[in-house]
Amino acid sequence: MCTAANYTATDHYFGRNLDLEYSYNETVTVTPRNYVFKFRQVDELRSHHALIGISTNVDGYPLYYDATNEKGLSMAGLNFPENADYKPEDPKKINITPFEFIPWVLGQYETVAEVKEALKDINLVNISFSKEYPLSPLHWIISDREESITVESVKEGLHVYDNPVGVLTNNPTFDKQLFNLNNYMTLSIDPPKNNFAPDLVLDTYSRGMGAIGLPGDLSSSSRFVKAVFTKINSVSGSSESEAISQFFHILGSAAQQRGCVRLGDKYEITIYSSCCNTDKGIYYYKTYENSQISGVDMHKENLDSEEIISYSLIEGQQIKMQN
Amino acid sequence: MCTAANYTATDHYFGRNLDLEYSYNETVTVTPRNYVFKFRQVDELRSHHALIGISTNVDGYPLYYDATNEKGLSMAGLNFPENADYKPEDPKKINITPFEFIPWVLGQYETVAEVKEALKDINLVNISFSKEYPLSPLHWIISDREESITVESVKEGLHVYDNPVGVLTNNPTFDKQLFNLNNYMTLSIDPPKNNFAPDLVLDTYSRGMGAIGLPGDLSSSSRFVKAVFTKINSVSGSSESEAISQFFHILGSAAQQRGCVRLGDKYEITIYSSCCNTDKGIYYYKTYENSQISGVDMHKENLDSEEIISYSLIEGQQIKMQN
Amino acid sequence: MCTAANYTATDHYFGRNLDLEYSYNETVTVTPRNYVFKFRQVDELRSHHALIGISTNVDGYPLYYDATNEKGLSMAGLNFPENADYKPEDPKKINITPFEFIPWVLGQYETVAEVKEALKDINLVNISFSKEYPLSPLHWIISDREESITVESVKEGLHVYDNPVGVLTNNPTFDKQLFNLNNYMTLSIDPPKNNFAPDLVLDTYSRGMGAIGLPGDLSSSSRFVKAVFTKINSVSGSSESEAISQFFHILGSAAQQRGCVRLGDKYEITIYSSCCNTDKGIYYYKTYENSQISGVDMHKENLDSEEIISYSLIEGQQIKMQN
Amino acid sequence: MCTAANYTATDHYFGRNLDLEYSYNETVTVTPRNYVFKFRQVDELRSHHALIGISTNVDGYPLYYDATNEKGLSMAGLNFPENADYKPEDPKKINITPFEFIPWVLGQYETVAEVKEALKDINLVNISFSKEYPLSPLHWIISDREESITVESVKEGLHVYDNPVGVLTNNPTFDKQLFNLNNYMTLSIDPPKNNFAPDLVLDTYSRGMGAIGLPGDLSSSSRFVKAVFTKINSVSGSSESEAISQFFHILGSAAQQRGCVRLGDKYEITIYSSCCNTDKGIYYYKTYENSQISGVDMHKENLDSEEIISYSLIEGQQIKMQN
Repeated sequence: MCTAANYTATDHYFGRNLDLEYSYNETVTVTPRNYVFKFRQVDELRSHHALIGISTNVDGYPLYYDATNEKGLSMAGLNFPENADYKPEDPKKINITPFEFIPWVLGQYETVAEVKEALKDINLVNISFSKEYPLSPLHWIISDREESITVESVKEGLHVYDNPVGVLTNNPTFDKQLFNLNNYMTLSIDPPKNNFAPDLVLDTYSRGMGAIGLPGDLSSSSRFVKAVFTKINSVSGSSESEAISQFFHILGSAAQQRGCVRLGDKYEITIYSSCCNTDKGIYYYKTYENSQISGVDMHKENLDSEEIISYSLIEGQQIKMQN
Repeated sequence: MCTAANYTATDHYFGRNLDLEYSYNETVTVTPRNYVFKFRQVDELRSHHALIGISTNVDGYPLYYDATNEKGLSMAGLNFPENADYKPEDPKKINITPFEFIPWVLGQYETVAEVKEALKDINLVNISFSKEYPLSPLHWIISDREESITVESVKEGLHVYDNPVGVLTNNPTFDKQLFNLNNYMTLSIDPPKNNFAPDLVLDTYSRGMGAIGLPGDLSSSSRFVKAVFTKINSVSGSSESEAISQFFHILGSAAQQRGCVRLGDKYEITIYSSCCNTDKGIYYYKTYENSQISGVDMHKENLDSEEIISYSLIEGQQIKMQN
Repeated sequence: MCTAANYTATDHYFGRNLDLEYSYNETVTVTPRNYVFKFRQVDELRSHHALIGISTNVDGYPLYYDATNEKGLSMAGLNFPENADYKPEDPKKINITPFEFIPWVLGQYETVAEVKEALKDINLVNISFSKEYPLSPLHWIISDREESITVESVKEGLHVYDNPVGVLTNNPTFDKQLFNLNNYMTLSIDPPKNNFAPDLVLDTYSRGMGAIGLPGDLSSSSRFVKAVFTKINSVSGSSESEAISQFFHILGSAAQQRGCVRLGDKYEITIYSSCCNTDKGIYYYKTYENSQISGVDMHKENLDSEEIISYSLIEGQQIKMQN
Repeated sequence: MCTAANYTATDHYFGRNLDLEYSYNETVTVTPRNYVFKFRQVDELRSHHALIGISTNVDGYPLYYDATNEKGLSMAGLNFPENADYKPEDPKKINITPFEFIPWVLGQYETVAEVKEALKDINLVNISFSKEYPLSPLHWIISDREESITVESVKEGLHVYDNPVGVLTNNPTFDKQLFNLNNYMTLSIDPPKNNFAPDLVLDTYSRGMGAIGLPGDLSSSSRFVKAVFTKINSVSGSSESEAISQFFHILGSAAQQRGCVRLGDKYEITIYSSCCNTDKGIYYYKTYENSQISGVDMHKENLDSEEIISYSLIEGQQIKMQN
């Protein structure tokens, strides 16, 4: 399904794996400040923060999967089947459809703290983009350099969770995901100590044994534990190259290989992995078949323009032959 | 530590992760047919199969970590601490030092079947390359398109195991590694069935749940299980690009991220990942900080020459900016 | 901590392990119909169903840990630290203190269905029995032959969960405990099939391998999974002796051995295990050091009397020497 | 299948679970000193140490499952399918059949040290007791107060392993069983520390969480880990009652409940659990349906007699009614 994370080195980074068995013609899309964001139930935004991220663009409207705005605020929607529950219109609330949620948030706010405040009045309303683009069951991670939150609209209402790990995958609900980490408390990046039977000679026969018990399957709760462990213990140099490399390694720890999750005659794979430098507005990505990092820099575009700017993903393997 | 694997699509591929906390100035090295391979206890090879692989070259001698010869036979040495036991010279045997083992095998043989025959007379003798380059405790995987074997020189003698999975990591000994796979028999790429309590309503809340129980830590036995599961279930298209991509994803499933295995003040990481097309003699690799695939084609060199040819690894992140 | 379960053979059985590091002078206590149950905030029960169970009796008041009434309705309180949250008095509700909860329910109701109805008006009020007997953080399982429920008073309010497995341990909240069972769906009482790598020869080297992955530590969530698996798959003959034996084996699967859970200089152990035949009103039990089953039959007492009747637990090992 | 263990409090104890789906009319059998032990390939023992244990007696010959001699030496045979390999007669060796192995060892030796010496000349010869009683594939644990060994006759020959844990189950071979304990090094009887992410607030929501990862299924390798953890960390008082109680709790931690291991239309269960006080020669046992401990004291018999003395197992549940 999907894994999102953030990471702080010198700059702050935010990105995700998109795990699916099919592709929707995604592009890296820059939405400049004066593109008019129209919403179904609330007033349009004629002027707003510029955004960069990956979207499917339908009829000129960017349906963002994940994006970052020019202020460094980032947001990604991840699959949340069976749990996501969108509501009828509520006249006392600001009614935002799920597909408008990323533009509405990133268009207006600069920090997670502001978003938390704004979410008190939000109703995620069950209006789909079109017959061809019905509502996806999603939940969201919203991050800035200081903090992250997870937003889930479920049967009981809209839950906004502090996300102290800066990671999101899919089901179950975020409270259960966080709780589950308690079961892995003793796992360590250091060599194991013999607590089992101190008088017995046991052998640290391999490096890495301190984390035995860390799950490695591709279910959403196992990917959550694995990605959190990798992210929280990550170490990198301070350069852009080192930080980006480390970020893609974090996402790689929860990536999906073709063949490991079968869905009838299809296989779920990591379609793309992204890493946005949220301070510089540069969006980097890899695809399943192109391990080279490609990048788009929002500040090289005219951010005061009115039309969205799209870059097709470079999907073929880009091999550098040395002879 | 390390993970090696092979994979067959249209062509046959062989490669490995080298996991260490330091680097030895490795290069992609082509050894042409007429480079004179000298050995400590047996006659030199004046003419032999050409090799391509990664080595540290000392005093003009290629100390190969892994290599493939022009006949498609491949071999990699992986760390095997505490278990590797090299022997005193045995006058009734062919005495090969561990650092000569890859050239001696790949220089002469075309198939694993031939190597198995030759190994009956081999003694891995405890002679080091030099004071500066003492013996490493290693075991080896040797593969052609048809089969793989694992070679381990331990206290009890030289063991040659059929390797039906085409994967090797490190400790414990290979018989224990293979045996351990029995404990994961029920893990599946398909959605789980409710065997636990058929009358109870249980929920397949995520894709990938059929493999819950697959280990995800970086110890050598956990990496073995994870890499075997990924490799054996791998699916790819038949093109070179698709096959290579899938192969690097297999290795990625067992890769080591900086921070997850601490050794005092250092961290073990996947220094490089390689994938050799053994049919075409093209050696592809990535490094920890360069996710683009680089390649060297042995057939673009003069394979009848006498001097080794080396290509430094391209180690900085090669980013393709789209704007 | 604790494990409770029910089980149906010819008759219906209900019981529990009490796991603690100390003992409170527990007795098997029969409360006859005309013992006056006084309550802090609601009217006393002058006449009610008779009860049998284990309690600590303080000032003539039976503080029940678990009990069954003469109609076959059963209830047990289990430790629920950090989660249990009792409330201030609520004038619109029936205010029952936690220590009165078992008598209040079992004194009046015959079925779980009736209890569910009654619970709609209940407030578990934060009044302790006395300074010496402060409130314990508890949650409860209530069972009849047809169904079980779990009752939890937490920060958000009083939650009443259907309990389809008829098992309760301790933390986390019951919704999380039930959810966690999903992760064990594939575990089976039957020999494993090779889904991992169908073309690879794997060996079913032992009976019982179909359930590899079942947890065996003594944490409350692991005991829950283990006890549910054992209970749901239990098979026994229809006689009283066979059913009781099986019931104690179910509890034994989650029992705590001295030394396995250290609390400073003490160890948590299974103080007693109980099994009440709820149809016949016979309460059976074992203690940590007396593996023989002892029994008390409520119907051998005068159930129309007014005073509680207590039997001390037989705690020394009762060995039958055959010569 | 089976679990055997020893335990030392004031006295030394040795016992086992016999796990099978059927029963062979086992009895507690005392073999006095002058019963003539006849052997197929070696001289009979006309006078020997007296034995007590559980056996099936066929034609007056005690086929022991486990036994202890009057010197405190103990031995048990446990199922070892696919691995046990008995040999043709070897004229240079002392040829003992597997069914004679317990009498031959316990009849003559007082300590494990002596047995180790004697085993150097032993060949376990493939001669069955009779057509009706073919050879069982077995391996053995032999214990005195000081040490334990495991004896396995496999394809490669007779292996005698020091057994530092004093526990034996079934497959795989004992070297693999011991090695597997390394994977559980960090498991602890103490509350867990947060190594996973020290800056993250994680919650020790239950006692016993320090051992999360301990297996709880009934396969032979999981029972080995669980029984070793329980035995090695066991704490008991010094009295006979306390020590026996603890010993049966150790065996209980690896017991098999009916329904959890299905074999076609049968279920494997723990037929009996035994605990011999090897200092006093008292053999205690429980059966699946009789949880009371029964006992037979060898020293209450005439140990100088010539005929075996048998006590049928008391198998019905012995309930002590208190009213």
